[in-house]
Amino acid sequence: MAATSKRPAKKRFKALLRVYRGDEIALGPGKVELLGHIADTGSISEAARRMAMSYNRAWLLVRTMNRCFRQPLVMASRGGDKRGGAQLTKSGKDILRLYRRLETKCASATRQPVREILSQLKG
Amino acid sequence: MAATSKRPAKKRFKALLRVYRGDEIALGPGKVELLGHIADTGSISEAARRMAMSYNRAWLLVRTMNRCFRQPLVMASRGGDKRGGAQLTKSGKDILRLYRRLETKCASATRQPVREILSQLKG
Repeated sequence: MAATSKRPAKKRFKALLRVYRGDEIALGPGKVELLGHIADTGSISEAARRMAMSYNRAWLLVRTMNRCFRQPLVMASRGGDKRGGAQLTKSGKDILRLYRRLETKCASATRQPVREILSQLKG
Repeated sequence: MAATSKRPAKKRFKALLRVYRGDEIALGPGKVELLGHIADTGSISEAARRMAMSYNRAWLLVRTMNRCFRQPLVMASRGGDKRGGAQLTKSGKDILRLYRRLETKCASATRQPVREILSQLKG
């Protein structure tokens, strides 16, 4: 472990894709990850745990999404025996799928120029 | 101007495209805008002015870019009579063109899913 040895710097490209309604972020990577975990777990609290996020923070994100879209994306019951019991609505599933299509399309469309730019960075 | 009248919320999609070398942002929207203004004006100070940015801040961004890439993107002389006199190198022009291609490709590839998502936001 010579102190002078250097590992090559990690080179990467990142596309941060966000949808705004007015000043609010209706959809972005964090909210979409949360939707995915809610779909997988059927629970806001478990989804929050997987993201190392507080239950209240997860609720805030869900409320923001539900407020921004014509149809709510998540149906949930807060507190009580079913604390955090939740599922995506039809609209939530649609939006999740559309956002992932966004990501895929952006990634594949940019692959070539990204490769060229990264190749010109120092190692 | 009835206080109760509401304009429809502005709906928009934004893709923030960044290139990292290690922890540093080698290229992003701000740096690229700066490159464009340097190309247009031949001057870092004039480019900074157009972005309402301090000369020192603009220099910092230029230094970061030049440090991250194998070839410097900007050739500049600091201070003196030619304060801020600057131009893009061949590599700088290439990178500017490549990043703009990135933006165009991302925008056109995502147009359809973006339209669908925006249409599902509240008015």
